[in-house]
Amino acid sequence: MDMPQRPASPDPDSRADELSSQPGVERLFSPESVAVVGASEAGLGSMVFQNLHRDFPGRLYPVNPRRSEVHGVRAYPTVDDLPEAVDMAVILTPAVTVPDIIEHSAARGIGGAVVLAAGFAEAGAEGKSAQQRMTDVARAHAFPIVGPNCNGFYNGQRKVAATFAIPVDMDRPKLGPVAVVSQSGGFGSYILLKAITAGLHVSWYLSTGNESDMNVARSLRYMIEQPEVGVVLTFFEAVRSPEVFVEVAARAAELGKPVLAVKAGYTAEGSRAALSHTASIAGSGAVYDAICKQYGLIQASSVEQMIDFGLALQTGRRMAGRRLGVLTQSGGSGALMADVAETVGLTVPVLPDADRAHLQSLLPSFGSAANPVDTTGNFNMENFDAVYGGLAASDGVDAVLPLIWYVGERETEATKKVWAATDKPLVVATTLSAPDIAAMGIPVYTDPARAVRAIGAVAAFSESMRRRESVEPPRLDADRVTRVRALLEREAGQAFVLESVAKQVLAEYGIPVSREIIADSADAAVAAARELGGKVALKVLSYGLPHKSDSGALRLGLQGDADVRDGYEEMLASIRAANPDIKVEGVLVQEMVPAAVEISCGLQRDPVFGPMIAVGIGGVLIEIVGGTVLLRPPFTQRQAEHAVARIAEGRLRTASRGLSEQQATVIAKAMTGLGALALELPEVDSVDINPIRVDGDVAKAVDALIVVTA
Amino acid sequence: MDMPQRPASPDPDSRADELSSQPGVERLFSPESVAVVGASEAGLGSMVFQNLHRDFPGRLYPVNPRRSEVHGVRAYPTVDDLPEAVDMAVILTPAVTVPDIIEHSAARGIGGAVVLAAGFAEAGAEGKSAQQRMTDVARAHAFPIVGPNCNGFYNGQRKVAATFAIPVDMDRPKLGPVAVVSQSGGFGSYILLKAITAGLHVSWYLSTGNESDMNVARSLRYMIEQPEVGVVLTFFEAVRSPEVFVEVAARAAELGKPVLAVKAGYTAEGSRAALSHTASIAGSGAVYDAICKQYGLIQASSVEQMIDFGLALQTGRRMAGRRLGVLTQSGGSGALMADVAETVGLTVPVLPDADRAHLQSLLPSFGSAANPVDTTGNFNMENFDAVYGGLAASDGVDAVLPLIWYVGERETEATKKVWAATDKPLVVATTLSAPDIAAMGIPVYTDPARAVRAIGAVAAFSESMRRRESVEPPRLDADRVTRVRALLEREAGQAFVLESVAKQVLAEYGIPVSREIIADSADAAVAAARELGGKVALKVLSYGLPHKSDSGALRLGLQGDADVRDGYEEMLASIRAANPDIKVEGVLVQEMVPAAVEISCGLQRDPVFGPMIAVGIGGVLIEIVGGTVLLRPPFTQRQAEHAVARIAEGRLRTASRGLSEQQATVIAKAMTGLGALALELPEVDSVDINPIRVDGDVAKAVDALIVVTA
Repeated sequence: MDMPQRPASPDPDSRADELSSQPGVERLFSPESVAVVGASEAGLGSMVFQNLHRDFPGRLYPVNPRRSEVHGVRAYPTVDDLPEAVDMAVILTPAVTVPDIIEHSAARGIGGAVVLAAGFAEAGAEGKSAQQRMTDVARAHAFPIVGPNCNGFYNGQRKVAATFAIPVDMDRPKLGPVAVVSQSGGFGSYILLKAITAGLHVSWYLSTGNESDMNVARSLRYMIEQPEVGVVLTFFEAVRSPEVFVEVAARAAELGKPVLAVKAGYTAEGSRAALSHTASIAGSGAVYDAICKQYGLIQASSVEQMIDFGLALQTGRRMAGRRLGVLTQSGGSGALMADVAETVGLTVPVLPDADRAHLQSLLPSFGSAANPVDTTGNFNMENFDAVYGGLAASDGVDAVLPLIWYVGERETEATKKVWAATDKPLVVATTLSAPDIAAMGIPVYTDPARAVRAIGAVAAFSESMRRRESVEPPRLDADRVTRVRALLEREAGQAFVLESVAKQVLAEYGIPVSREIIADSADAAVAAARELGGKVALKVLSYGLPHKSDSGALRLGLQGDADVRDGYEEMLASIRAANPDIKVEGVLVQEMVPAAVEISCGLQRDPVFGPMIAVGIGGVLIEIVGGTVLLRPPFTQRQAEHAVARIAEGRLRTASRGLSEQQATVIAKAMTGLGALALELPEVDSVDINPIRVDGDVAKAVDALIVVTA
Repeated sequence: MDMPQRPASPDPDSRADELSSQPGVERLFSPESVAVVGASEAGLGSMVFQNLHRDFPGRLYPVNPRRSEVHGVRAYPTVDDLPEAVDMAVILTPAVTVPDIIEHSAARGIGGAVVLAAGFAEAGAEGKSAQQRMTDVARAHAFPIVGPNCNGFYNGQRKVAATFAIPVDMDRPKLGPVAVVSQSGGFGSYILLKAITAGLHVSWYLSTGNESDMNVARSLRYMIEQPEVGVVLTFFEAVRSPEVFVEVAARAAELGKPVLAVKAGYTAEGSRAALSHTASIAGSGAVYDAICKQYGLIQASSVEQMIDFGLALQTGRRMAGRRLGVLTQSGGSGALMADVAETVGLTVPVLPDADRAHLQSLLPSFGSAANPVDTTGNFNMENFDAVYGGLAASDGVDAVLPLIWYVGERETEATKKVWAATDKPLVVATTLSAPDIAAMGIPVYTDPARAVRAIGAVAAFSESMRRRESVEPPRLDADRVTRVRALLEREAGQAFVLESVAKQVLAEYGIPVSREIIADSADAAVAAARELGGKVALKVLSYGLPHKSDSGALRLGLQGDADVRDGYEEMLASIRAANPDIKVEGVLVQEMVPAAVEISCGLQRDPVFGPMIAVGIGGVLIEIVGGTVLLRPPFTQRQAEHAVARIAEGRLRTASRGLSEQQATVIAKAMTGLGALALELPEVDSVDINPIRVDGDVAKAVDALIVVTA
């Protein structure tokens, strides 16, 4: 999928990304020669060297000015003394020495560096400037740097353990499709160890630390392209390079590789904690949620859940639908699993008649073959294989979950047989453990609810793959931009754009607006009202009155000459009495637009992800209703329609007095227009259309506030 | 707390409860003599006998007509042959034999029975009638029966293992404050084993199975009164004896004993699964949620979470507030824990200045003492005890959560010291395990998010204890009931009560209603409109038109004689044209009531829990907005105010255009009135007031539909 080129970008990192060190990343992460600067016989310098020495098949050089050899390998005093320009340098020396070493390394033609030392941006002004020097070298020389303040990386395929996240004496993890990428080094080790313990097959580990150059997004850009990588688990606090982040998410979806993410600093409490830690803005949780949903990232609520999901997804098995087959010995647990299934969007449907009859014939009379298939405790275990296999084979289910209290040899053998006979996801829930099943790579959970949620993640990912659609790069309409900028020029220096002008801008983007005429006298207002016909509203246009209804600058439902004239005069008199110095630009005479439903639609610019289009219930209830949905432009009409369908948790579309399909299409079109505006006019800081009044097949914006960056 | 006597009850079990076998429960559950009917040398009959034989200190008799002794103990052919009327009989014989044995046991003066056999109500008509015979005996003879189709109970204090849920050769669980009560036997064993493995100290286990007599609610009624019980974990599908259920919940709150509950059959999927299993109605998930919130039951989303919460609550430590102190070695994990904290209603506040300065002096310069306290990985471990203890001692936190990657001797000793020095909850999160800490009864979690959620449960329970208030038994107003019944009598046989009458009924319960006059001619309508003044609405009163606005039986905002007359005639003409046979009872001339906000308030009768009062956003948006809140009468004015404060996740009260405190009080008063109506008039099936229009300090019901049971 081609990512659209943004005509103008609010992302401060995007220029830096273009100049970034990405080209040298392959050499850094898959090196054939490595130097360990600060290699020693004790401490981290020893641990990291030994980790590499243990099984790195390439050329390995310790660098240490005070030793002639390290762990029996000839050492060199400085990077300049190395016999070759190595592909990668791991740097463990104190922070103050690092920028010089980086400069020398880059000058020497070394491929890139992994800086494990701490004491940089997290440690005050001096450290910050040292880190900036590193960033400058990275960008100037296309010299990729991982860290500082990280614990390095592990490339299992190439046997590069440039890290202290893995103990030297620990068995290497079983290689497989999983990559773990963590901003935090300490927590990254925790995640890695938990993942390995849970049975994930990990080929890659990386911590990005202070992200002087390589950040999570740019590391993922490399990693998802590696053929051995099938699933990514990632933990981070700040999203740096948001453009790369969404690009990577879209590319991973294209490749069918799930990216599981836990983001810290998500709430107000967490954001404060993250800010004090990383000095970077964590961003809005609601915007991040929307980004994940739009680009197909799988959010997990905890590291444990991310690992649970990874365990099910690393099998590569996907679901054709959302139907779960449950096998249990206890009806109570079956009902509980069905509950959890529903909360994660799965169904536990009654099996097709033939399958049900077949299974019932194998069960005791008071067992149930309906699904959950309940063998009860009084089951003839001779039939176990047949029931288990029969459920898995049924066309009525897309995945199978047996809850087996105790997994003995019989249950293990049966599970292996079913696993081999089907390509549907199969996960086992049991009381304490099932090591022989887990060793086959079959996911095992010791809590049935967690097992169901993991299958829910597989179903959701499978469905997002089926629904994936390409987003065309938006076409910039240069003529329209010129026309709109001419309109906005007249508003320069004002706190907001006058409503009448805002409506003209919206109309340029295909958003239907109320018919209206500006009047500068009571006579003109009367004439305008006659021309519009029916009832009208009067609104005072003034840069001093951003909120008309709160300041009495609004009269609604006037009809007939006398009403309009009286309303006009009375409104202006009272406005002038309350605001003696006010400058009135005119009075907007506006048709009254009927409404069965009121919608709000707006553009906000997120400090991290840039433009976001919001759509929700409008009118005075906007604060009360909630359930607003966000989309990041560009997006398709269909994505916008899905967004409308999710307003107020979907109730706006399903309620009997909610939006019809046709009305939803019209609102989605307005969103698409606002999305184009956001991309074409980066100087427009925010747009707030509230309400768009919808009735029958008519939808019109009747009020709009546009704010342009000064 | 005295539970109110309901003047009339829709609960089919409540009469049965009065006649129930509760008096003999003490004798059954704490027996001094036990007979095992069906004791044998093999199978369950052997297992259960051996479980009792192993350590029951009282007199134990096998009953088996085909053996003179069982496992070396003299056996008796039938219960009639026993040398004494034992306190309890465990019955393991086939289903068909059980009702006779029960009858003989009751006749013999035996205290009660635990029936482990299956094949009763779950196995068709014959089993159902056998079970009914057992129920009849239980009720007639105050002879309590546990089961059938259960796996018995375990009373650790009295050493009664009348169960096959615990293997004979397993170490008995460490005694402590935990009771596990499960409707399901199989899943109950699973929960028990998981709980023991997780470190819960279990004194009681009980499974209720088919609940022929003793159900979960009635078992809990006994159990929460036992002095050794401090925390109850319970799993069930159906709530039988709902009156007892809420009574027990309220009593447990009074005793300060948390009751943790997982209910299956909660969603549509789960409910269908439960129905096929238990043949009882699972009830509405929303109603059950509301009941738990109102009566202080702690809902867990899975068995694992129930056990997690139990681990933290069994310590008996409670929190004075909601402030969590977090200690970590990685800022990223600190931010993540702060995130989870916020989602469960905890705060992670910056520490008081003095504490912060003290801790900062012990940390590296780039560590943080703000909270989360982040020692970073480069921490001088000499200071570990002082930082850990200092955080726990701070007046700025109510509970402490250290995340310790690896718990060695130093960390264990430090934890023990802090545990001894504070009475705040302390839970430890670590990577894999911390057995020495767990052995002290200090909660240990291997996922930081689960640790935070467990503390959230402690905080929520502690707060619910502080906020607990007694509900006065409602006083039945006999005169009012007489007056209202006289009104309703005129409506007998109709599908609903005429709006004008409904309003009179509401007014009797203190609910303010719109001023209105019934007119039977255009002249009368004009006169009525003059008397009411201002604008009026006209509504056709007819039993043929339950939904006026959908059928054109409504005209709004009429003013002046001509408008009213025209409106009246035009409306009646069009109604008659559309419904030639319609019988019109009159036309309601109603004042127009202004509304800043529209509220809905209603009474529904839940098939399980009976009357529920609902309050939410009203008007045409009711389906779209959601966020309706339910309360079960009787309740206090303050509880009703809290309910109003929770509408639309609290936004209705906090939004700038939402309800003021005074308005919320008025709405709460209407709820209280509707609650009294629900209890005084069991024949009223439902009330739907929509909307109550609220503006300034005026709130008036402008439309109301009452349905009375035929």
